[in-house]
Amino acid sequence: MYEGPVQDLIDELGRLPGIGPKSAQRIAFHLLSAEPADVTRLQEVLQRVKEGVVFCDVCGNVSEEPTCRICRDVRRDPRVVCVVEEPKDVPAVERTREFRGRYHVLGGALDPLSGVGPDQLRIRELLARIGSSVDGVEVNEVIIATDPNTEGEATATYLIRMLRDFPGLTVTRLASGLPMGGDLEFADELTLGRALSGRRTV
Amino acid sequence: MYEGPVQDLIDELGRLPGIGPKSAQRIAFHLLSAEPADVTRLQEVLQRVKEGVVFCDVCGNVSEEPTCRICRDVRRDPRVVCVVEEPKDVPAVERTREFRGRYHVLGGALDPLSGVGPDQLRIRELLARIGSSVDGVEVNEVIIATDPNTEGEATATYLIRMLRDFPGLTVTRLASGLPMGGDLEFADELTLGRALSGRRTV
Repeated sequence: MYEGPVQDLIDELGRLPGIGPKSAQRIAFHLLSAEPADVTRLQEVLQRVKEGVVFCDVCGNVSEEPTCRICRDVRRDPRVVCVVEEPKDVPAVERTREFRGRYHVLGGALDPLSGVGPDQLRIRELLARIGSSVDGVEVNEVIIATDPNTEGEATATYLIRMLRDFPGLTVTRLASGLPMGGDLEFADELTLGRALSGRRTV
Repeated sequence: MYEGPVQDLIDELGRLPGIGPKSAQRIAFHLLSAEPADVTRLQEVLQRVKEGVVFCDVCGNVSEEPTCRICRDVRRDPRVVCVVEEPKDVPAVERTREFRGRYHVLGGALDPLSGVGPDQLRIRELLARIGSSVDGVEVNEVIIATDPNTEGEATATYLIRMLRDFPGLTVTRLASGLPMGGDLEFADELTLGRALSGRRTV
């Protein structure tokens, strides 16, 4: 449609997830008229990402230093570990302001059809972390917070099997049920079923 | 929310038009796990855009060479010039496959409140182009195809005033009316009014 670098930029932007041809065009023309310094900043940050993001050697979250901010924070309870699939799940839990423990990022969920088995996830690191005491403090609760979908459920089931033999360890899972602000009428039967079977005495 | 380059990338992406925090995060994690070659391609194309996109010295459209592909195409009628606001309007008209003339890109629309007057647009170039014959061929029709909004209408009115004194030049405008596939019931009164006043004998 266009000539030269403009079309190339539109094509490259269009390859990014969630950016359609219209958005790609809009962003390309924005960058075309943007200050060179703005474009340079975007280039530089792409360079830094390409040179490698550091992952925390304790929890596996994206990090600036070898050990991430949360794992270094002495105010965070090291006895409670919340297991999530991806780094982006950490801010989601953090936003609740309900959790003051540490995290463990698996790096995905079990999905044998796509070739993701237990060895592709950071499960071995999780077991090692639970088995060893750090500064005389042992993990006494693991909260499994995988996604409520097929792969996440399979991963949770696998983790529960691996973790139940640790003495003195409580394994918990996030509650399933009706989302807040939702409408009972529009809840799918699986969610409503979970909400029923997980009902609590008040 | 995140540490290090990941958050910087999310911030930079979030500055682009139409990309909210969620999309920025999604794209950042996509780039994080993308092949380095893909990121390099995006960097390179940003570099090429920053080094300067060439604008056609005849019509003002984005171009690879000093004169753009359409202005070089001898099969395109040089006697008919379609005046549009932005380079992105050119592919919009091209997609109709109804137009076989040339273009003139103004580079915006009159907007005195934002400091865009006639001198900020390529109006002088348009007048020079109409006034001079190229290879003995003169422009005999100018189609004004500015946006149907306040600024576009003001620009059209200004252009009509500047162009009406050229001898032998027909100045036309795109028809206003009901959009195809639309619903008469939902047309706004301005559009419906235009459709009425522009009604044609069948």
